[in-house]
Amino acid sequence: MSVDHTPGETIPSDRTVRLLDTTLRDGEQAPGVSLSPDEKVEIARSLERAGVSVVEAGSACTGAGERRAIARVTDLDLDARVTSFCRGLESDVDLALECDVDGVHVVVPASDRHVESKVGTSREDNLATTAELVEYATDHDLWVEVIGEDGSRADLGYLEELAETALDAGADRFCFADTVGHTGPEHTATAVSRLAEHGPVSAHTHDDLGLGVTNALAAVSAGADLVHCTVDGLGERAGNVALEEVAIALEHVYGVETVALERLYELAQLVSRATGVQLPPNKAVVGENAFTHESGIHTDGTLKDDRMYEPYPPETVGRERRLALGKHTGRAGVEATLEEHGVEATDDEVAAIAERVTELGDRGRRVTDADLLAIAEDVTGDDRERVVELLDLTATSGGAVPTASIRLDVDGEQRVASGTGSGPVDAAVSAVREALGSQADAELESYHVDAVTGGTDAVVTVEVTMVRDDRSVSVARSEADITRASVEAMVDALDRLLATEERPFAPADD
Amino acid sequence: MSVDHTPGETIPSDRTVRLLDTTLRDGEQAPGVSLSPDEKVEIARSLERAGVSVVEAGSACTGAGERRAIARVTDLDLDARVTSFCRGLESDVDLALECDVDGVHVVVPASDRHVESKVGTSREDNLATTAELVEYATDHDLWVEVIGEDGSRADLGYLEELAETALDAGADRFCFADTVGHTGPEHTATAVSRLAEHGPVSAHTHDDLGLGVTNALAAVSAGADLVHCTVDGLGERAGNVALEEVAIALEHVYGVETVALERLYELAQLVSRATGVQLPPNKAVVGENAFTHESGIHTDGTLKDDRMYEPYPPETVGRERRLALGKHTGRAGVEATLEEHGVEATDDEVAAIAERVTELGDRGRRVTDADLLAIAEDVTGDDRERVVELLDLTATSGGAVPTASIRLDVDGEQRVASGTGSGPVDAAVSAVREALGSQADAELESYHVDAVTGGTDAVVTVEVTMVRDDRSVSVARSEADITRASVEAMVDALDRLLATEERPFAPADD
Repeated sequence: MSVDHTPGETIPSDRTVRLLDTTLRDGEQAPGVSLSPDEKVEIARSLERAGVSVVEAGSACTGAGERRAIARVTDLDLDARVTSFCRGLESDVDLALECDVDGVHVVVPASDRHVESKVGTSREDNLATTAELVEYATDHDLWVEVIGEDGSRADLGYLEELAETALDAGADRFCFADTVGHTGPEHTATAVSRLAEHGPVSAHTHDDLGLGVTNALAAVSAGADLVHCTVDGLGERAGNVALEEVAIALEHVYGVETVALERLYELAQLVSRATGVQLPPNKAVVGENAFTHESGIHTDGTLKDDRMYEPYPPETVGRERRLALGKHTGRAGVEATLEEHGVEATDDEVAAIAERVTELGDRGRRVTDADLLAIAEDVTGDDRERVVELLDLTATSGGAVPTASIRLDVDGEQRVASGTGSGPVDAAVSAVREALGSQADAELESYHVDAVTGGTDAVVTVEVTMVRDDRSVSVARSEADITRASVEAMVDALDRLLATEERPFAPADD
Repeated sequence: MSVDHTPGETIPSDRTVRLLDTTLRDGEQAPGVSLSPDEKVEIARSLERAGVSVVEAGSACTGAGERRAIARVTDLDLDARVTSFCRGLESDVDLALECDVDGVHVVVPASDRHVESKVGTSREDNLATTAELVEYATDHDLWVEVIGEDGSRADLGYLEELAETALDAGADRFCFADTVGHTGPEHTATAVSRLAEHGPVSAHTHDDLGLGVTNALAAVSAGADLVHCTVDGLGERAGNVALEEVAIALEHVYGVETVALERLYELAQLVSRATGVQLPPNKAVVGENAFTHESGIHTDGTLKDDRMYEPYPPETVGRERRLALGKHTGRAGVEATLEEHGVEATDDEVAAIAERVTELGDRGRRVTDADLLAIAEDVTGDDRERVVELLDLTATSGGAVPTASIRLDVDGEQRVASGTGSGPVDAAVSAVREALGSQADAELESYHVDAVTGGTDAVVTVEVTMVRDDRSVSVARSEADITRASVEAMVDALDRLLATEERPFAPADD
């Protein structure tokens, strides 16, 4: 079999490339995102474990609270360099020093738009100020990176002058910044290769044109050796380039190692939790579906050979492979799932079940374990009695103590119970648990409600996965009443889990 | 001022590049995604309005329902070519013909892994089968694109042979497929330039390494003239390359026009609604935050000059600019928002308010209009009495008729009302409307509940925006009880809207 990997030749595998993470600064500038000091500390620790070189902890000039948070991060005494963002003002450097940072990013205008319209200075004066600022910062023993803001829209000759001035004054490096995510890989490569003649160059790219990674790689191939990025690609507007994408692309395509890839997923989840920004299912490396196969061809191929439809094993980035049911699931996927649930079916029956699964998908529906099992029963004629069934449900919410009552049919016997909880669904779930008792012990492994947008009468989709012993069952329900949808899904999942057991509610034999 | 746009030179602006959209085929293969025939038709119409060249409507072999959906799309008689995916089987071509498509994508294995392990054939036999299939399809007057599956992991010499065989047999084009999202731009460019010597070449890229766009552009620069993409970058695993990113990158960086950019946002929203896959806030072009500015520096700059922090005007892609409040909002942003709400404050007061907004953000909180206005009242000492206040709330859900009762303090007078609805929140909202009557007419412009993941006792964040006349107010509430969070947010928003009016609940003077 021929070798199937052709490494990229523009970045040799022995190049040293390091990553600067600015999740705590540029990432936090994303609209609607705020991190508490505790969250900043936890993320910084996780970045350290992954092995980033520089942790930009915040922007000291933002306020006293932000400075306390930055100081908490510098207190961790990380191997990574901990830095603060500074506007082009000595007072900003002073504020950064108060936080005891190892270094600063001094941002000075580079494009005429920023030099003239925003800062209201001239090219000449800007050079002089930059040199003074760098000297001020290095005099205070700070590591200094000068960022030429809006560098991608700057006159390239002037940008070179700015870099030369900064580096001559003692800056450790100069950063080529595509601040507004405006440029392409050719200009990035041209600019970086010219800047690199004067000293070490970093790259700061944004994803407004979807070119965050493209430009980061172009910068590295042209000589940049430090890449600014954020976890999950958070940041202003469309965000900065994603740390996980830069890391996997450099290692997989070019053989250049930057961070511990197996830490990327836990890092992504941590940042998602802390910021409240959900990970998109189709996000490279860290999205829920990045290693999930649904379609028949892909599932079948993957069951034959893991690598058939994957660029690298999911374990590389701390993840696992998942097979999902859906409209495109073929026979192989159906058979594998039925087996998991201990359901036997002939080849003809499997084919018929697969067809019915597709029909369900054709109507625009997701397909869960419960759907598959219901279809299988219908096809095999294997009728069964429900073990648990929901007869009545009432939940009261809005007041001080959300309360619910429930009536279930459990193995032919009616059971009534009540419960309280932190909301209507939680109260109803506790009533269900009360009604079933310890015989039906099952864990709610996941409870997910799709985001609701639109009106208060929008249909809500609830998906639950329940686990009992080694078996798990997923059920989805869509209704306008979130309480009813949640409890129906949960009771159906319990019913499915208990159905394969011999008389789960029989009295003990002792 | 120097010209700030440096176009990319590797793709000349007079190159003709067209887009093939495979949202209805590869996009639908994303785990959990199923589209109904009506949804397929609506998306196809929207793709036509945007001006894509080829609409791949589905995979005819999936089943009878899928064929009916494809036939519905071909019935639309679009200007775009409507096609079906086919495995390398004559019977699949027959099924596509049943749907009356204009053309087919015939997928044949290209890498040894796929030729030998998956299909179980030999390189030689595969060439022969490919030629026969192409002849069969062209004999039936179909436009034919042959996709060499897993082409990026194939032996390049063999891939060339396969392309030559397909084109010699009459195929209209050959597609270089990075099926598993495995390769980088160098190999893509090398492969495409060699394939292009034999005839027209398409590119099919996936985003597993975050290189979907990088590779699509590399393919175009090497000679590909048709790019496969999906709206919102949906698709297997991490998804296909996003249509909106390819379109904006080609036009903004290279001056190459492909589709009507101003249609991209409505298209993205339509696909998000139909598939249930939320648009990430930081998605290029179509994410909620792509043109939103929160940080002080960016807001201040944008207020001075729209283009200061934007690569292109949002209207280019059918959108509007938005300023948001948050931890990094500086004085300029606070002042602009206060002005909107008719609140006057001195410079010192604005500075103090901005500081308090930052403090709120430091605690990890989102900042809404209501938060800002509460802070402003506190700072300016401008105490006010609430116009509307929630005293009691009870909602019953889970049963047949969700019902709620409410007690409000309205301008000093207690009002009690009840209502029913499709769920507990909807019932409570109708009770609030009943209690306030027509004097407090306000529209619920948006109601958003963040996705709930974790347990049933998770804290739920509800954000509402209400509009009365020309003014809108946003309020967010986080509580474990979704009913309480929703109603509190809504009553607070109403209170804020009514507070600026003179006695909104006074009896009419006639």
